[in-house]
Amino acid sequence: METDVYAKNCPSRQVLDRIGDAWSVLIVSSLKDGSLRYTELAQRINGVSPKMLTQTLRGLERDGIVTRTVHAVVPPRVDYALTTLGRSLLSLCNALQDWAEMHIGDVLDAREAYDSRV
Amino acid sequence: METDVYAKNCPSRQVLDRIGDAWSVLIVSSLKDGSLRYTELAQRINGVSPKMLTQTLRGLERDGIVTRTVHAVVPPRVDYALTTLGRSLLSLCNALQDWAEMHIGDVLDAREAYDSRV
Repeated sequence: METDVYAKNCPSRQVLDRIGDAWSVLIVSSLKDGSLRYTELAQRINGVSPKMLTQTLRGLERDGIVTRTVHAVVPPRVDYALTTLGRSLLSLCNALQDWAEMHIGDVLDAREAYDSRV
Repeated sequence: METDVYAKNCPSRQVLDRIGDAWSVLIVSSLKDGSLRYTELAQRINGVSPKMLTQTLRGLERDGIVTRTVHAVVPPRVDYALTTLGRSLLSLCNALQDWAEMHIGDVLDAREAYDSRV
């Protein structure tokens, strides 16, 4: 299949929208050591709203990146885990986070300089 | 500096929001071979609205990832180019696009299966 992320109607662009999303990156990275419950994800990803977490998880499930397993216990327990496809994203997500953590100083300096000019 | 992208108030999370954004990825990749004019970027990135392109470019400029050069000609010409910091993002952006283009088949299959279940 010919793909071109620059083309408006190419589905690979939708994939880029999904994986080029900070919440998705944080969720995929959180699941690197194994499955987590919804509540564990909510705690780990500080500041994510329940609505955004649920919506992002549903998108990742639909795209075949995470699985959602409902356990028939009381109270109900829902686990999320990476699929093989999701695992293939791990190194990318780590690289994105490493870049963000390594270059935050440069970015903050640039912002200060920019804001003092405008 | 201690950084943690999972922490709500950590600035590295804002950096992740910026680079984990599909428009930013497409703009950074478009500039890999040198500077481009605004109109060239708009053509290359099929389907981006002028508002979104301008807004994303301004964010990238503020974060020190692209430079904006206004040439005093008639009609005015505005060029965008990657900074050294921006260049350090190229391999990541390429990897994200490669993943999107390589796995689009898997993702579309997963979506079809998901949509037939719900």
